[in-house]
Amino acid sequence: MTQHHHSVGESRLERGRRALAEIDGEAGEKVLASLADIAPDFASYVLEFPFGDIYSRPGLDLRAREIATIAALTAMGNAAPQLKVHIEAGLNVGLTHDEITEIIMQMAVYAGFPAALNGLFAAKEVFARRPAPRR
Amino acid sequence: MTQHHHSVGESRLERGRRALAEIDGEAGEKVLASLADIAPDFASYVLEFPFGDIYSRPGLDLRAREIATIAALTAMGNAAPQLKVHIEAGLNVGLTHDEITEIIMQMAVYAGFPAALNGLFAAKEVFARRPAPRR
Amino acid sequence: MTQHHHSVGESRLERGRRALAEIDGEAGEKVLASLADIAPDFASYVLEFPFGDIYSRPGLDLRAREIATIAALTAMGNAAPQLKVHIEAGLNVGLTHDEITEIIMQMAVYAGFPAALNGLFAAKEVFARRPAPRR
Amino acid sequence: MTQHHHSVGESRLERGRRALAEIDGEAGEKVLASLADIAPDFASYVLEFPFGDIYSRPGLDLRAREIATIAALTAMGNAAPQLKVHIEAGLNVGLTHDEITEIIMQMAVYAGFPAALNGLFAAKEVFARRPAPRR
Amino acid sequence: MTQHHHSVGESRLERGRRALAEIDGEAGEKVLASLADIAPDFASYVLEFPFGDIYSRPGLDLRAREIATIAALTAMGNAAPQLKVHIEAGLNVGLTHDEITEIIMQMAVYAGFPAALNGLFAAKEVFARRPAPRR
Amino acid sequence: MTQHHHSVGESRLERGRRALAEIDGEAGEKVLASLADIAPDFASYVLEFPFGDIYSRPGLDLRAREIATIAALTAMGNAAPQLKVHIEAGLNVGLTHDEITEIIMQMAVYAGFPAALNGLFAAKEVFARRPAPRR
Repeated sequence: MTQHHHSVGESRLERGRRALAEIDGEAGEKVLASLADIAPDFASYVLEFPFGDIYSRPGLDLRAREIATIAALTAMGNAAPQLKVHIEAGLNVGLTHDEITEIIMQMAVYAGFPAALNGLFAAKEVFARRPAPRR
Repeated sequence: MTQHHHSVGESRLERGRRALAEIDGEAGEKVLASLADIAPDFASYVLEFPFGDIYSRPGLDLRAREIATIAALTAMGNAAPQLKVHIEAGLNVGLTHDEITEIIMQMAVYAGFPAALNGLFAAKEVFARRPAPRR
Repeated sequence: MTQHHHSVGESRLERGRRALAEIDGEAGEKVLASLADIAPDFASYVLEFPFGDIYSRPGLDLRAREIATIAALTAMGNAAPQLKVHIEAGLNVGLTHDEITEIIMQMAVYAGFPAALNGLFAAKEVFARRPAPRR
Repeated sequence: MTQHHHSVGESRLERGRRALAEIDGEAGEKVLASLADIAPDFASYVLEFPFGDIYSRPGLDLRAREIATIAALTAMGNAAPQLKVHIEAGLNVGLTHDEITEIIMQMAVYAGFPAALNGLFAAKEVFARRPAPRR
Repeated sequence: MTQHHHSVGESRLERGRRALAEIDGEAGEKVLASLADIAPDFASYVLEFPFGDIYSRPGLDLRAREIATIAALTAMGNAAPQLKVHIEAGLNVGLTHDEITEIIMQMAVYAGFPAALNGLFAAKEVFARRPAPRR
Repeated sequence: MTQHHHSVGESRLERGRRALAEIDGEAGEKVLASLADIAPDFASYVLEFPFGDIYSRPGLDLRAREIATIAALTAMGNAAPQLKVHIEAGLNVGLTHDEITEIIMQMAVYAGFPAALNGLFAAKEVFARRPAPRR
C-alpha cells in the first residue's frame, strides 16, 4: 500500500486515475465506463475530486480512508453498489475479511441492526468472489 | 491505547464501563448520567452492547473503530451531540486533529459537502476545548 | 380517546381541525399559527391530509397511530420539533411516560443508539413540562 | 406544458387525475393500478394531495416542479422506482436529457457521489426507453 | 400473543431465541443462518440485544412493538428485507393486514409518499404469501 | 443572472470564487472564512468542485440549479445552515419568496410534512432578513 503523494506536473485527472486504479481496481474502471454514454464529464469529476483530491491527500493512509468509507456507506444504507466496490477496495488496500466484518458490525450501534445486516450481506457477496487469506 | 480484551469473570457491564471510560471519558459519563431519571436501563444497554460487546472485540483496534464512527456520524448528519463525543473519543484513542479533519473532509465524497461542513464545525468546537498537539 | 369517524357533511378541513385539537392540542395550534405569514395554504394542507384524512381513518386507533409516529420520527432523527409535538400527542391520546420511553429505546435496534438517545432527551424535555402519572 | 389551474367545480380527485396524466403519464397509472388490491384509498390520496393539491398550484411551473422532485429523490437515494417515474415525468414536461443529467450530477455536491451515480444509472435506464432528441 | 417476561436463570441468548421464534418465526431463523459463515457473533448479538433485551421488556406488548418497527422501517426506506420480515412479524403477533396497511400509509405524512408506496409494495408481497383473514 | 461560462485561462479556483460571489454572496464568504483555521484546503475544494465545476456548467441556469438545491436540502432535512444559505442564494439568482415557498411545500410529498415544515421555518427566518418584493 503506497500513499498517493502528488507527483510533480501530474494533473488531478492523472493523479485520480492512478489512485482509482490502486484503490478500486477493475470495479472502479467499470463504473467509469458505464458513465461514458450518459455523463462523461461526471467520470472526470469522480477521478478528479474523490480520487485526485481526497484519496491522494497525505494526511491519512488508504487503509484508514477505506475504514471510513466502508463505515459511512454501511451506515447510510442507500448505496449498495458503492458499498460493494469499497469492500473490495478495502481488501485491495490491505484490510482483512475480519477487519471489514468488524467495521460493518460496529455500524449496528450507530445506524441500527438492519444497516449492519445489509452491510454484512454485501460483504458476504464480495468475499465469495475474493476469498482473501485471513490474517 | 490498549485493546479491551475480555477479562476472566468480568461482566459485560463492567467491561463496558471500562471501555467507555477509556474511549469517551467524561463526555460518556455525562451522557449516562443524563439518562438516569428517564431511562436508566438504557444507560446499561449503552454500556453493555456498544462498549461491552462491540468496542471490546479484539479484531479491530480503537483507533480504527473511532475512524469508522466519526465517518459514519458525519455522513449520517443527524446526530451532532454524538459526533462531538466521538471526535473527542478519537483524540482519546490517539487520532490527531489533522487525521480527524481528513476523515470528515472525505465524507464530502460520500454524503455531500453540507455533511462534511457540519462535521468540520463540530470538530472545530471540540478542538477549541481540546487543543491537542498536532503531529 | 375517541376515534375520528367522519361526521356527515363535515369537510376535510373541519375534520382535520377537530383531530388536530384532540391529538396535538395547543402545540399543534402553535405550529399552524407560525405558518400564517409564510405559507397559510400549507397550514390547510396539514389539517386536511395528515389530520383530516390519515388520523381520521377508522382502521387504527390514535394510540397505535402515535406509537407509529413517535417511532418513525425518532428513527429518522432529523425532525426534533415534530418529535416533541408527537411525544406530547402520545400523552394526549393515552400513552404513558414509560410506554413512550419503551418505543424510543426500541429504535436503538433499527436506527442506532444516537437516534434513540436523542429521542430520549426530547422525551425528557417534554415529560418535564407534562409530568403525567406513571401507571 | 400547461399549468394546472383549478377548473370551476372540479374536485381534487379529478384535478389530480388530470395532473397525473399530464405529468407521469402511463407510469403513474401503473403505480395507481398496483395499489388497487392493497390500499385503494392510498391511490386516491396520491391523486388528491400530490397531484390535485401540490402540482396543481399556480405558483411554480411543472418544469420547475420536476427539477425539484428529481433533485430530492436523487439526494434521498432510497426511492429508485419513484425517481425513474419522475425522470420520465421530467421528459414529459419538457426537460431534456442533458438538463436531467445536470440536475442529478449536481446532487453529488449535496448528497455525495454515490447518490449522484445511482441517479445517473436510473436516468440511463429511463433514457434508453425514451430516446428524446437532445436540444 | 404472550409477553416475554424474563424466566429465572434464562440467559439473554436463550430469551432472545425464544422471542425471535415467536416474533419473526422462520424468517428470523433464515437471517441468523445466513450470518453463520460470515459473522456468527453478530447472530448472537441479534438474538441478545434486540430480542433478548428489547423485545423481552415488559413495558410494551409485542403488538405495539411491531407497530413501532413497521413504522420506522417504512419511514427509513433503506431496509426492505428487514421491513418484510417485520410485516410478517406483525402478522405473527396479531396485527391484521388492514392495520399494517394503515401504519404504512400513515408514513406518507412523516417520510413522504415514496416511502409509503415502497412500504405498501413490500406488504403486498408478504400478504401474498400470508393471506391472513382480515378481522 | 448570468451563466458562468468558463473564461479562457481562468482556474477552477478563480471561476469558483466568481460563481460563489454571485450565488451565495456574503453568506458563502462567511462559510469559507470559518474554515480557515480548521480546514483551509476544504475551503478551496468548496470553491473548486461545487462552484468552479458544477455551478459553472452551462447546461442548466442558476435559477434551475437553486431550485434543485433548495429541494434537496429541504428533503434531506439534516443541513439547516446550508439550506438557509441556499434559500438566500435562490433570492440572489432571481427566485421569489413565493417560488421558494412552493418548492419547499412540495417536499412534503417526497420527504414528509416535518421536512417541509422545517424548510418553511428556515425560509421564514431568511425572508425576515431579506424582504424581497414578491412578483
